[in-house]
Amino acid sequence: MIRPIANERITEAEVDAIFTDRWSPRAFDDRPLTEDQVAALFEAARWAPSCFNEQPWLFRYAINKKDRSRFAEALVDKNREWAQHAPMLLFVLARKKFIQTGKANRHAMFDAGSAWMSLALQARRLGLYAHAMAGFSVEKAAEVMGVSLEDYEVMAAVVVGRRGDPSMLADDLAAAEKPNGRKSLAEMVKEG
Amino acid sequence: MIRPIANERITEAEVDAIFTDRWSPRAFDDRPLTEDQVAALFEAARWAPSCFNEQPWLFRYAINKKDRSRFAEALVDKNREWAQHAPMLLFVLARKKFIQTGKANRHAMFDAGSAWMSLALQARRLGLYAHAMAGFSVEKAAEVMGVSLEDYEVMAAVVVGRRGDPSMLADDLAAAEKPNGRKSLAEMVKEG
Repeated sequence: MIRPIANERITEAEVDAIFTDRWSPRAFDDRPLTEDQVAALFEAARWAPSCFNEQPWLFRYAINKKDRSRFAEALVDKNREWAQHAPMLLFVLARKKFIQTGKANRHAMFDAGSAWMSLALQARRLGLYAHAMAGFSVEKAAEVMGVSLEDYEVMAAVVVGRRGDPSMLADDLAAAEKPNGRKSLAEMVKEG
Repeated sequence: MIRPIANERITEAEVDAIFTDRWSPRAFDDRPLTEDQVAALFEAARWAPSCFNEQPWLFRYAINKKDRSRFAEALVDKNREWAQHAPMLLFVLARKKFIQTGKANRHAMFDAGSAWMSLALQARRLGLYAHAMAGFSVEKAAEVMGVSLEDYEVMAAVVVGRRGDPSMLADDLAAAEKPNGRKSLAEMVKEG
């Protein structure tokens, strides 16, 4: 049974609910995404801003069983355990050099983060959730995708899907299956 | 006169309009932001996800004339020319090390990008626009803020405000004052 989770996040200022409504569950339903859903996720990412409009992000995704198993090999065991049930697993990459000049792009990771955030917010608009993970082997991820780490940083592994029944999770993860908190505004913003 | 700009962006998939509605103008009206608007911008950024919920972003902002002039010293001349009219100028920083462990955080810039994207989208919800710039001196920015580049990466300078009359811009910038395009989905997404 999937209980709607009361979102108890408390904001310090009035803000669009899309931001507090986004969180990172671990229990995912295994029903596949539609083609339209998949396209909409990346379409949102596509319009993110970037330095010189370079669009240094690259998304590699797995939706069929074979690709998902292959991609999942790069995850740490603790993440693979729950993430393998989600209908989509993807990696967010950042291209390290500008295509035109070949020079290092110090904004590549930052801009890839903007594109990822757009994807995560669009997921909620579709009734889906996206959960990004740092717990994966960068080398293994590069290997399963066949990309060179000289060209790309592999920034995050992400699963996307509908929320599933938390009872499928190990007890410690089931207990943590709810939106988490944040530092105060005063700790992240300063005037002057 | 501020003409509403017809957004001619063409999407390949149906997506929430908030993503295509966001773009980066250069003509800004100089009317100040309200306290509620300022708080809402950062509140949106606050709820971005991050590796280990580290929240490695830091926002330093200038809204009074003195701070804005000081911050604007870090911009390249070509950006300062138009950006100085906006009622808010800020820098987005990424904390390089995890607070708890002191270890390098390879996700800091990526996560700061997520927080920045949330701010940019919330700006539109408030009827405002946010324009991020890479054209600034990192060293000068660190100096005017009094932060150490050993601790922080200064990722972007950002102005926020209402759209202004494009006739205030130099001719080449006035001609470019409209939403720009993107690569095709096929160039940024690959299955498998």
